Amino acid sequence: MSTPCITLYPTGQKLPQVGMGTWKLDKNLCEETIYQAIKMGYRHFDAACDYGNEVEVGLGVQKAIQENIVKREDLFITSKLWNTFHAKEHVESIVQKQLKDFGLDYFDLYLIHFPVSLEYVDPSVRYPPGWAYDGKNDVRTANVPLQETWTAMEELVTAGLVKAIGVSNMCGGLLVDLLRYARIRPSVLQVEHHPYLTQTKLVQLAQSEHIAVTAYSSFGPLSFRELNWDSANEAKILFEHDTVLKIAQNHQRTPAEVLLRWSTQRGLIVIPKATDPVLMKQNLEHIQFDLTEDEIRAISSLNINLRFNDPSDYLSDSKRLFIFA
Amino acid sequence: MSTPCITLYPTGQKLPQVGMGTWKLDKNLCEETIYQAIKMGYRHFDAACDYGNEVEVGLGVQKAIQENIVKREDLFITSKLWNTFHAKEHVESIVQKQLKDFGLDYFDLYLIHFPVSLEYVDPSVRYPPGWAYDGKNDVRTANVPLQETWTAMEELVTAGLVKAIGVSNMCGGLLVDLLRYARIRPSVLQVEHHPYLTQTKLVQLAQSEHIAVTAYSSFGPLSFRELNWDSANEAKILFEHDTVLKIAQNHQRTPAEVLLRWSTQRGLIVIPKATDPVLMKQNLEHIQFDLTEDEIRAISSLNINLRFNDPSDYLSDSKRLFIFA
Repeated sequence: MSTPCITLYPTGQKLPQVGMGTWKLDKNLCEETIYQAIKMGYRHFDAACDYGNEVEVGLGVQKAIQENIVKREDLFITSKLWNTFHAKEHVESIVQKQLKDFGLDYFDLYLIHFPVSLEYVDPSVRYPPGWAYDGKNDVRTANVPLQETWTAMEELVTAGLVKAIGVSNMCGGLLVDLLRYARIRPSVLQVEHHPYLTQTKLVQLAQSEHIAVTAYSSFGPLSFRELNWDSANEAKILFEHDTVLKIAQNHQRTPAEVLLRWSTQRGLIVIPKATDPVLMKQNLEHIQFDLTEDEIRAISSLNINLRFNDPSDYLSDSKRLFIFA
Repeated sequence: MSTPCITLYPTGQKLPQVGMGTWKLDKNLCEETIYQAIKMGYRHFDAACDYGNEVEVGLGVQKAIQENIVKREDLFITSKLWNTFHAKEHVESIVQKQLKDFGLDYFDLYLIHFPVSLEYVDPSVRYPPGWAYDGKNDVRTANVPLQETWTAMEELVTAGLVKAIGVSNMCGGLLVDLLRYARIRPSVLQVEHHPYLTQTKLVQLAQSEHIAVTAYSSFGPLSFRELNWDSANEAKILFEHDTVLKIAQNHQRTPAEVLLRWSTQRGLIVIPKATDPVLMKQNLEHIQFDLTEDEIRAISSLNINLRFNDPSDYLSDSKRLFIFA
C-alpha cells in the first residue's frame, strides 16, 4: 500500500501523511533503520540539525538511492534551522552544511525549529550547538526578529536549496503575524500534538490558512520518558489509558495505531519513530482503518493542555524561555 | 490614602496600581463618574478608541483640571490603538484625533489594543469602527506586520504625543518577538487576568522583562455577563465562589476586594470599573489588607484557562480570528 499524501500549499508538493521521525534515533542505528524504512515503503523523513544525526540518516538515504530502491525525487526530506542560526548571515551557510552532511542537493521542506533566536555558535566550536551557549547552562538569546529569519528562509527557496519552508513550535499569534509579512507562505506547521495537548484552535488556524500540520510526539509522554522528564513520568501513558485501550479493542488495533489514526484521520501528518521492523510497519500502515466520530471526540476530550516540549520547563530558572507564554 | 505606584521601565513613570477602567462605561455617566473618581483620589484612567466614550471621559478629566482638583501631570491616562489603524500612515493621525477628543496634549501610555490588523475604516465613515468592516459581520484583516505598527508607536513617543507605549491581548511568543526589534520597549502588557485565567507564564515572562502587567476583567465572568455571552453566563460568578467567599470572610472584606488584592499583591495593576461611589471607593482602597501566601495560592488554583475576551469565540465561524491559538 502507498501512504496517502497531503498536497502542500502553495508548492503543490505531495507530503506523505506518515513519515519517520529521527529525533533521538541512535546514530548507530540510523543508516540501517532509514535504509530498511525506505525498503518498507517510507518516503517521508523528518530530520533536524539539533538531532545530531543528519550524517547518519543521510547514509541510509544514500544507500537506498545507490541501490535504486528509490530516486531522490521519490523522497520527502524535512530538516530544520536551529536557534543559533537565525541571523540572516547564517541561514544559507548552515543549510549548505546540513545538505552536505546529508549528501543531498536540496531539502523538500525546511522549518524554523523554534521561534527563539540564540547567540551564534560556530559549527567548528560545537555541533549541533544545542540550547546553551557553553553547552551547559548559559542560554543566550540573540536579537534577531523572526521576520529577518523568515526572509532568509524565503531566499533558500529562491536559491533552490529547499522546495518549501515552514515553522515549528510556534503559537498562533506569531503565525498570524508571520503571514502578514511572508512573501513565501509557510507550507507546514510542526507542533507537539497528542490527546493531552490537542491545540484545537492552533490546528484550526493553520488549516484555515492552508498550512499543513505535522504532529510530533503523537504518543504523548512516551517520547519524553526516554529523557526521564518529570512531567512525562508523572503523566499516565496513553497506551494504557482506558479510553484509548477500549477504542483499540473495538478495532483490534494497537493503542499506537489508534493514536496515529486519531491524528491522520483529522488531516494531520505524523512522524512516529521506530526501529523495530514490526512497529515501523504498523506505524506506516496504521491508516487502513477508520475511527468513528464518537471515538475521535472521546480521544480529543482527553486534552489537558499538557505540553512536554516547553523550553520554559527544562531550562533553569534564570534562563527560561517563555515561547509558549 | 494614596495608591501605591508601579515604576515603569524604561520611562520611570509612576503608574498607580489601581486605576479606573472605562470599557462599557455609559457615555451619559462618563463625565460625572470620572470627575467624582478624581475627587475621590483616582489618578489612573484606562481608555480606548474602541470604547466609544473618549470625548465623555475627557469631559470629566477637563472638569477636574479646570476646578484645580488635579493638574494634568498628576493624572495617568492610557488609551489604545484600534485594529483598523495599524498601518504606519494611520497611527499618528488617529492618536491626534483621540487626543483632541480627550482634550489632551499627550497620553501617558498608549497600547496596541489587539495584535490584529484590520482593514482601514475612515473615522468619517464610522467611529469607533469596531471589528467588522461594514459594522456588522464582514471582518477584514489587513496585511500589516506588527513590527510596522510598533515602529509607528515608537514614533509617537519621539513626537511627544505619548509618554510610553505598550501592548494588550498579546501572547508570549509575539511579545518575545517584539522585544527583538523594539527600539523603545513596551512598558506595559494589558491582558485579561482573573482566577479562571491566571496566565502564569505570560505574567512571569512580562515581569522578567520589566514589563508591567495590567489585569483587565479582574472579576472574571462578571464583566462579560453584561454582554450576555454564553461562556460568561455558564461560568460560576467569582463573587459566589466558595474559595473567594471564605477568604473574604477571613478578612472581613468583599469578594471584589479579595480578587483585586490577589492581583495587586502579586505586583499587577488593576483597572476595575464602577459607577457607585461606595464601590468606587472600595476598589480604590482595597489595597489596605494583605492575603496570606496560602490564600493567594488557593485563588490561583482556580485557574482553568478560561478566556472570555477571545475574538475566535465571538466572531462568526468564517471570520474567526485566532489570536490566542
